[in-house]
Amino acid sequence: MPEADAARPAAARAPGTGAVAVVAGAGRLPLLIAEALDRAGRPCRILAIRGFADAATRRRAEAAVDLLDIRGTLARLAAWAPAGVTLAGAVARPSPAALLNTLAAYRNRDALRALASGGDDRLLRGVLDLLEEHGHRILGVHDLAPDLMAPAGLLGAVAPQGVAPASVAAGRALLASLSPHDVGQAAVIAEHRVLAVEGPEGTDRMLARARALARRPLGLGRAPAGMVLVKEAKAGQDLRVDLPAIGPRTVRHAAAAGCAGLAVGAGTTLILDRAETVAAADRLGLFLLGLEARP
Amino acid sequence: MPEADAARPAAARAPGTGAVAVVAGAGRLPLLIAEALDRAGRPCRILAIRGFADAATRRRAEAAVDLLDIRGTLARLAAWAPAGVTLAGAVARPSPAALLNTLAAYRNRDALRALASGGDDRLLRGVLDLLEEHGHRILGVHDLAPDLMAPAGLLGAVAPQGVAPASVAAGRALLASLSPHDVGQAAVIAEHRVLAVEGPEGTDRMLARARALARRPLGLGRAPAGMVLVKEAKAGQDLRVDLPAIGPRTVRHAAAAGCAGLAVGAGTTLILDRAETVAAADRLGLFLLGLEARP
Repeated sequence: MPEADAARPAAARAPGTGAVAVVAGAGRLPLLIAEALDRAGRPCRILAIRGFADAATRRRAEAAVDLLDIRGTLARLAAWAPAGVTLAGAVARPSPAALLNTLAAYRNRDALRALASGGDDRLLRGVLDLLEEHGHRILGVHDLAPDLMAPAGLLGAVAPQGVAPASVAAGRALLASLSPHDVGQAAVIAEHRVLAVEGPEGTDRMLARARALARRPLGLGRAPAGMVLVKEAKAGQDLRVDLPAIGPRTVRHAAAAGCAGLAVGAGTTLILDRAETVAAADRLGLFLLGLEARP
Repeated sequence: MPEADAARPAAARAPGTGAVAVVAGAGRLPLLIAEALDRAGRPCRILAIRGFADAATRRRAEAAVDLLDIRGTLARLAAWAPAGVTLAGAVARPSPAALLNTLAAYRNRDALRALASGGDDRLLRGVLDLLEEHGHRILGVHDLAPDLMAPAGLLGAVAPQGVAPASVAAGRALLASLSPHDVGQAAVIAEHRVLAVEGPEGTDRMLARARALARRPLGLGRAPAGMVLVKEAKAGQDLRVDLPAIGPRTVRHAAAAGCAGLAVGAGTTLILDRAETVAAADRLGLFLLGLEARP
């Protein structure tokens, strides 16, 4: 073991050896990561966040913590001394019950408010910083399970046609312009026309908005030609904190909005359930395109 | 009369002489312009768009046309030979009845669709181009009634405090980045965090979105500190086609969303009913700031 490593806490050992700790929020992602680690023959231990981790995740989890129980989380991770820690799954919208639990345990509304006012990113980054200060190495989905990320190129059977490539280019240009600002990482475009820019509401709600706009009376009930969803991480975005993601539901919502297809950043966008996502795009006649990183 | 002018149709006489024709859509703006022209001692004739112009506008109007009755509109304007023409009031969302009327008269769905697919701006610009080809001089509200536009500086009794000036600066920077793209001209910002970017849905719906986001559970029911609405025309925006506007309703919606204030481009933003707008801001404790043009 090199001298520099010997001086670091056990938890900071190089990834690839020892167990990876998955601190698990809502949705399927925590188990998808666990399964990817299983396939790679890497041990994995799940710490479920109460009120967020779903039943299947909780069944595999070895322990559970409250969302804002930082002390309990640190104690558990110190005991596990994992090779790396990943935070996976949504925690942005706790159930009111979970929130009240947390408040009752801490009674520090001001501290909570200070974190909450910074937005989801700042909340999660605050947690990551704390974990790193305690010697943990933070890993992202793209580190642990690169197979879950979108590859470059056409993923399904449908190719972009007509003005759709122009819509994709306009969407990428828009997102590049937005990159320095703390705003969403997706937009709906029809040729040069921007129908919606994603904010903290998320992609599904943005698509619902685009759907309503595309059906306005003067549009004669038909979506604009070549309307696309473009989703791409900001330049320099910390994918451990904020990972763009799509899944079968995104494809269905994009189809309902009238999109001709989806274009997502290759290597930087998570595809939840790729087989089902591609099948949904094919069935609904939408293209699904992985965009090479900008040069 | 200089020779160059003699060769032009009568309708293209220099503005300031003869009547101004106001082609009037929905809302109060057409009559506000007429009243401003009255105060300036300039004659004014209103051509109401059926299905859009409200009752008060129709009472003052000398004639009415259907929204897409371009031939009838051109004939009426040729007969009036106005010093200038202004299009005022919303026509973006015709009532289904008005739309069916138009369709029944023209039966050219394809032509209508081609215009509609370009969005509101392109539809209106197409009309302006046609009017100009027929020798009419198109004027904007800012030409005819500059008093209706926001002045620079603080308009009400409340001054921006705390992080609000930083929110305003971040909002202006965001809108400047968006300027090259065909997207809305307003955003809701809390310090560096972008809560919403306006698309074709308009400012009121964007504010409703920001209101919902600000009240998410983790936000503890309280809007972020220093949250502001920033609204400003794009660089080089043709204000005759697309004029940013606010009014008392905008102030009420901004207050409901949790905004500390509104900042709008001075000289490029219409304030519908300034006295009532400022009174609403004062009553609700919001600042109302006119932003000097960017250097």
